[in-house]
Amino acid sequence: MPAPHPFDEALILKPAADGMLRGHTHPAWANMVGPFGGITAATLLRAVEEHPERQGEPRALTVNYLAPIADGEFTIAARAVRTNRTNQHWQIELSQDGAPRTTATAVFGIPRATWSDTELSAPTAPAAEDVPTAEAPDGAVIWVGQYDMRFVEGAMPGPGAGSSPSSTTTLWVRDRRGRGIDHAGVTALCDIFYPRTFLRQGGPGPAGTVTITVYFHAGAGELADLGGDFVLATARGNRFTAGYFDQSAELWSRSGNLLATTHQLVYFKG
Amino acid sequence: MPAPHPFDEALILKPAADGMLRGHTHPAWANMVGPFGGITAATLLRAVEEHPERQGEPRALTVNYLAPIADGEFTIAARAVRTNRTNQHWQIELSQDGAPRTTATAVFGIPRATWSDTELSAPTAPAAEDVPTAEAPDGAVIWVGQYDMRFVEGAMPGPGAGSSPSSTTTLWVRDRRGRGIDHAGVTALCDIFYPRTFLRQGGPGPAGTVTITVYFHAGAGELADLGGDFVLATARGNRFTAGYFDQSAELWSRSGNLLATTHQLVYFKG
Repeated sequence: MPAPHPFDEALILKPAADGMLRGHTHPAWANMVGPFGGITAATLLRAVEEHPERQGEPRALTVNYLAPIADGEFTIAARAVRTNRTNQHWQIELSQDGAPRTTATAVFGIPRATWSDTELSAPTAPAAEDVPTAEAPDGAVIWVGQYDMRFVEGAMPGPGAGSSPSSTTTLWVRDRRGRGIDHAGVTALCDIFYPRTFLRQGGPGPAGTVTITVYFHAGAGELADLGGDFVLATARGNRFTAGYFDQSAELWSRSGNLLATTHQLVYFKG
Repeated sequence: MPAPHPFDEALILKPAADGMLRGHTHPAWANMVGPFGGITAATLLRAVEEHPERQGEPRALTVNYLAPIADGEFTIAARAVRTNRTNQHWQIELSQDGAPRTTATAVFGIPRATWSDTELSAPTAPAAEDVPTAEAPDGAVIWVGQYDMRFVEGAMPGPGAGSSPSSTTTLWVRDRRGRGIDHAGVTALCDIFYPRTFLRQGGPGPAGTVTITVYFHAGAGELADLGGDFVLATARGNRFTAGYFDQSAELWSRSGNLLATTHQLVYFKG
């Protein structure tokens, strides 16, 4: 039996007697402080996916990062606050030592056959095979090594890089071990972008996601068809002011399907 | 003393003995069923703004519409779940008859002097004075009459309108009575767009916001400077599929300040 994938390992949740779920941070997903925000968001989504009352598929997720998560065990409480015929609303809270560290709300929905169209356009990019895999820069956080990232535009600025007039980053990205993409995988990828201020200011500075929202467009079947293929991820900042900026981003399949749109508010200094 | 403005009347919240706030739906803000989602979102924000523990200004708000709000009294519970040095996280719930109808999370923050820039561009539009005020179509919902709306692009399709290849709507909008815009006013404006499916499909059909997120870029001072002036509001859909679509939108001041970016997931049939 092959060893479980570090992504799946990080998402292991065990039911506890009090109706809560217990999980544990995973060293493969370590960030500067605590775990990668994307793996935390994916874990909160997974708590709903595995809940016996869960109805339908993920359609929206908003995760609020209240406080750093310490390495070690954590507890998740997931509660369906309203189940309608089609939509189901969830509240989720991750806590350590009895204090909330991350909160989330999620909307799950039952897919229905309707008119469909994608109006947004994917960024132009060469084939993933024609773009070299980025080498992790010195001092890179550990979780970055879980992905094969190939930057088309806006790679992390290295030493001596000047400021850029554009905050856009576009990259091909896939799991380094070829894990197939599911809704939890989409969730993590939505938080894969380093802070846009790094590009604009020509180097790193204190910054962190305060809240992120994901809208899931691809259903489980559409994702299963992708296997572990590359996804084209693109992000840009809109307005930077008074210590915050907002980022809008998208994930596209190689064949041009808009898998998810995602937005976040980021705190920064400098 | 002049009569209070219907917007301010709708946001009146009275403290109750149990630490909750009591409010009441306002007939001027009636939608097809229950109140306009924008006034509900603004009321939830106001519950935090008036809370004695509130620190800083609104930076992010996510509102989830669980169930219709019936005409009459409602109760709001607002709770600071985490206060950091700069950011404060809130959970808010509006209920009727003991059942949650709307839930929200909010991030308030203390503005800090930092590098600033706006990277997004405002849509091009003629001056507000050169665009006629839209007449409310037959059967329009009541709340629409609270605003002076001047459509630059993508007005609500009338009888016999064909489908449009674009879901973009851009309009100049201001309070009909000239009320100055504050963060609650911004919040309501963020939900002012009729469903994008109406444009794409050439006419109305069942649709409703499931969840909306607002990122507030303008601080209180920047908003106060606008007075009751027109705001340029623009919205577009990204992907429509399986009964849902996402909308991204922006509010711009006449002088080109990006006041807010906002995103929502909308349920639709047809």
